[in-house]
Amino acid sequence: MQKREQLYEGKAKKIYRTDDENILWISYKDDATAFNGEKKDRLEGKARLNNEISALIFTKLNEQGLESHFVERLSETDQLVKKVEIVPIEVVVRNLVAGSMAKRLGLEEGVELKQPIVEFYYKDDALGDPLITEDHIALLEAATADEVEQLREMAQKVNKLLIELFNNIGVRLVDFKLEFGRAADGELLLADEISPDTCRLWDSKTNERFDKDLFRRNLGNLQAGYQEILTRLGGPSCTK
Amino acid sequence: MQKREQLYEGKAKKIYRTDDENILWISYKDDATAFNGEKKDRLEGKARLNNEISALIFTKLNEQGLESHFVERLSETDQLVKKVEIVPIEVVVRNLVAGSMAKRLGLEEGVELKQPIVEFYYKDDALGDPLITEDHIALLEAATADEVEQLREMAQKVNKLLIELFNNIGVRLVDFKLEFGRAADGELLLADEISPDTCRLWDSKTNERFDKDLFRRNLGNLQAGYQEILTRLGGPSCTK
Ligand SMILES: Nc1ncnc2c1ncn2[C@@H]1O[C@H](COP(=O)(O)OP(=O)(O)O)[C@@H](O)[C@H]1O
Ligand SMILES: Nc1ncnc2c1ncn2[C@@H]1O[C@H](COP(=O)(O)OP(=O)(O)O)[C@@H](O)[C@H]1O
Ligand SMILES: [Mg+2]
Ligand SMILES: [Mg+2]
Repeated sequence: MQKREQLYEGKAKKIYRTDDENILWISYKDDATAFNGEKKDRLEGKARLNNEISALIFTKLNEQGLESHFVERLSETDQLVKKVEIVPIEVVVRNLVAGSMAKRLGLEEGVELKQPIVEFYYKDDALGDPLITEDHIALLEAATADEVEQLREMAQKVNKLLIELFNNIGVRLVDFKLEFGRAADGELLLADEISPDTCRLWDSKTNERFDKDLFRRNLGNLQAGYQEILTRLGGPSCTK
Repeated sequence: MQKREQLYEGKAKKIYRTDDENILWISYKDDATAFNGEKKDRLEGKARLNNEISALIFTKLNEQGLESHFVERLSETDQLVKKVEIVPIEVVVRNLVAGSMAKRLGLEEGVELKQPIVEFYYKDDALGDPLITEDHIALLEAATADEVEQLREMAQKVNKLLIELFNNIGVRLVDFKLEFGRAADGELLLADEISPDTCRLWDSKTNERFDKDLFRRNLGNLQAGYQEILTRLGGPSCTK
């Protein structure tokens, strides 16, 4: 597979065309950002950690029958994915109260939800990714009502699989953010990444944080936390 | 009816007990607040205008078969209502894009919505009345799923009646906020107030504002705008 010109540079990844028009080349970056870009840093090794973790998780989801855009790991920091038209909705699933939900609703972090909660946020950095309802999704034409139903179902399914996957390695899946896209045939496909950048992951026994809150809230070394997740998932240790 | 001790003082009204335990005495205040209390002023005559307008609107809704907590106008600034347990949800109905929705979603003010949109906000000043989904309502135990369905239906019904009521007097109903409460028998009842404090009201021809945006955005004399609504509704002109 040939890497062609850069299509897009996001906060965490660069996306390149390839010689196959249906396949994209993703290069993870060592950048960390939080609070809609207000807090920024370069954290060496983050690209490798998120690429390896995301590749491993997508592979495990595939083994459980859940398809995604993931095609192939290329290197420590790069992977191939199916090109999709990203649905401009961040689908958040929550099993425990944390982060913005705790703040917005005045709830205590760590409280277990009786039912997982699915939330939709409009993926728009300039607007600060606001929480939206299904009425807003229709108004913004971000997705059809049928797609919204599918997003909910797929998010719940991913949640079930991820809870178990992380539970097996002694980690509580607190919440996470998914992105979906429309493949060439119009089908909705799980896309983007699943990594400690996009999940809150707490040690099942100690509640130690292994996710981006390490960076957001200066709770400790981000790379050490992410490496712990990668190691527990059976991935390679640091190459340096 | 005897006025007894004050139960509660809100931003716009004082609520008193009466000698009937199912009836409350509402005294409207001349205070104006905006942006969750950040902007404040005393605007003489506002109490009278909102009390008269709210009494007139609740009466007209009643004539159309829509019940509310409204019992009786007592004076220029006071009215009797049925006591309810207020559901801590502000139900917002929008016919045109304006205000916080325009800002949150990056939409232009004044755009007509194909369908009216119903939104729920958690009534909590300390949290800044955040937008909430039905999942959040369940989590917060703010209302049952059955009540949420009723809130939606009642809000849509009020919207239909109010659109017509205002259309008849050359005013466009842009959006409005409703509060509901549980009456003694558990039934959901439209409560609080319906006034230019809680509705966006634009002149049908000129788009002149007759609502609290006059105060929020310093667009002109609030009392003149509210009096225009009261006069067009067939209410009394200023007493002073
Ligand atoms: N399979 C895919 N096809 C097309 N775009 C994708 C795919 N997977 C992820 N993307 C998009 O790649 C962009 C780069 O990712 P990222 O750096 O995380 O961006 P962001 O700054 O939006 O978080 C994002 O807009 C993401 O939605
Ligand atoms: N029929 C009713 N029974 C009990 N409380 C009511 C009723 N109607 C309105 N209220 C409540 O009266 C309070 C005072 O009103 P207001 O001054 O507008 O308060 P706020 O500062 O919350 O806007 C509000 O909490 C409102 O919900
Ligand atoms: Mg991203
Ligand atoms: Mg009020």
